Amino acid sequence: MTDTRYELYYWPGIQGRGEFVRLAFEDAGVPYVDVARRPETEGGGMAAMQRFLSGEAKGLRPFAPPFLVYGDLVMAQTALILQWLGPRIGLAPEDEAGRLAVHQIQLTITDFAAEIHDVHHPIAASLYYEDQKTEALRRATHLVKERFPKYLGWFESVLGKGGGPWFCGERIATADLSMFQVLSGLEYAFPKAMKRLEPKLPGLRALRDRVAARPGIAAYLASDRRIPFNKHGLFRHYPELDA
Amino acid sequence: MTDTRYELYYWPGIQGRGEFVRLAFEDAGVPYVDVARRPETEGGGMAAMQRFLSGEAKGLRPFAPPFLVYGDLVMAQTALILQWLGPRIGLAPEDEAGRLAVHQIQLTITDFAAEIHDVHHPIAASLYYEDQKTEALRRATHLVKERFPKYLGWFESVLGKGGGPWFCGERIATADLSMFQVLSGLEYAFPKAMKRLEPKLPGLRALRDRVAARPGIAAYLASDRRIPFNKHGLFRHYPELDA
Repeated sequence: MTDTRYELYYWPGIQGRGEFVRLAFEDAGVPYVDVARRPETEGGGMAAMQRFLSGEAKGLRPFAPPFLVYGDLVMAQTALILQWLGPRIGLAPEDEAGRLAVHQIQLTITDFAAEIHDVHHPIAASLYYEDQKTEALRRATHLVKERFPKYLGWFESVLGKGGGPWFCGERIATADLSMFQVLSGLEYAFPKAMKRLEPKLPGLRALRDRVAARPGIAAYLASDRRIPFNKHGLFRHYPELDA
Repeated sequence: MTDTRYELYYWPGIQGRGEFVRLAFEDAGVPYVDVARRPETEGGGMAAMQRFLSGEAKGLRPFAPPFLVYGDLVMAQTALILQWLGPRIGLAPEDEAGRLAVHQIQLTITDFAAEIHDVHHPIAASLYYEDQKTEALRRATHLVKERFPKYLGWFESVLGKGGGPWFCGERIATADLSMFQVLSGLEYAFPKAMKRLEPKLPGLRALRDRVAARPGIAAYLASDRRIPFNKHGLFRHYPELDA
């Protein structure tokens, strides 16, 4: 009898990119271990994660969290994890074109997330926000005016073309859950900008509400497993960037 | 009899992200049509690309070039294209762990490429470099000092662990060709920084030389199909950023 567990490794204090993977497990009701949030005395904590990042542990050394360990497989990159995981937990289309579409949407979410992150870190991830605030203010204007409509408009149109209610039609996939996360994060970080954009995004608003109402997600959001948004993650609410 | 062709769509005047796909076809000796570089009178040019970007053409509307069309499939995102293409043209490992590793390396190259691009566009892609040069100078210091060693050190260590000569051992894959492209681009854009880093990257230097000597690649680099590096692409040589 094998005892292979899904082990997710991610920074314990933030939603960040790990949240896209957490949402998939939570929606599917599939058990997983959120390793770095477990006590060190039980093999968890940052020490466990560090062994993989330093290359001491098994498998391909991840460049950065999140990474997923399943038996001998160690895989990093959020979109890759979800592409591998989706079909195994009932969150992927059956056909090739559908799976390519889901991965393409997920990778576009990855790009969008990086741009959203970089608005508070336009110079370097190693500097505090306060040390690059002038540049952040300048970048935010372009992000909100140019990139939000471009990305969100694309997601809205892809959703509309699919015939709904999900990106790939009748069957929910990992990218739908990730889209919910992006919308939730943007509403937290850029409430004013999102209020202005929302009328143009009826499909995405409906998707967000449908995801939030799914039993696994609703239970998760109400639990203490859901880390609140904060000023250390991907989505940060700095009112001056949401003018 | 089917007549399905590989049709690559990318901006005609730059290497950019399209180059990662071009290198795969060129190494494999597999015919492809570089559509936007063909005359409009033969169904090429920007007009052909625009029909897909506007959603008028078949398939999932790409968010941005490059995208690949094969029959009814339309796929965007460089890493996705290469993941789909690799096994079809003999540029992928046979086993699951190997394929996951190649995709993970490719996605890390995607991240690195975005950071390299953003050094000359730290505020917005819609602004000229000259209009964000102050910020670019500041970002370049961190990119060169912090991110180059981190990314290149990771690629070097992954290459070393694989047993060589390629990332996944005996068999070359798309990620090896993409790594060559990154190294070539960095040597063009940041010759001083790369000169300092090179002694620490013996594996990557050897990989670069081995790729350049492969018959398909050598012929391609000597041909006019290889667009020279220039100041419109991903890798740009601004001496002030390579201080």
